[in-house]
Amino acid sequence: MTTETLAGVSVTTRANVYFDGKCVSHTLAFPDGTKKSVGVILPATLTFNTGAPEIMECVGGSCEYKLAGTSEWKKSGVGEKFSVPGNTSFEIRVTEPYHYICHFG
Amino acid sequence: MTTETLAGVSVTTRANVYFDGKCVSHTLAFPDGTKKSVGVILPATLTFNTGAPEIMECVGGSCEYKLAGTSEWKKSGVGEKFSVPGNTSFEIRVTEPYHYICHFG
Repeated sequence: MTTETLAGVSVTTRANVYFDGKCVSHTLAFPDGTKKSVGVILPATLTFNTGAPEIMECVGGSCEYKLAGTSEWKKSGVGEKFSVPGNTSFEIRVTEPYHYICHFG
Repeated sequence: MTTETLAGVSVTTRANVYFDGKCVSHTLAFPDGTKKSVGVILPATLTFNTGAPEIMECVGGSCEYKLAGTSEWKKSGVGEKFSVPGNTSFEIRVTEPYHYICHFG
């Protein structure tokens, strides 16, 4: 099971482009004020810094990730989620496009 | 003036990835059943084929485009739109990320 659509949202039309386009996302605002983003990471190994805590939900493809301070790469595939604490970083390694929903807070 | 947000939509969470990621978009469905997409084209020169007619609205950056059967490159910047007939093609030339809304039909 995965989340194929998110309804009743307001989309920021301008994309967020990171790492020369290896990661592209669009920001979504919900009626209750919460924000999420939907995006894709193309084949690459990237390091992301978090502000707020994040939950990354895979909706297509897969990735491997490694949280700061850990030494183990873990896999996350369709329908799976992983949590990243706030104010830290994580590495992500992608060999096929990894489609995700990023839940904040 | 540009369209910064689109409200009350249902977003398909999986991205559309074209040309090895040189173009990434997300599909939006409106309550009346119409669909649009929001996307970004990274620096490249690409040829797109249309099914339905499209209106491309620039919401960030700029592009140059050339419709099939014409010889003139035209520029489209923020707040500007161009129309492409159905069942044809157009070339697009981008030197800075071109953020767009694609209106169909």
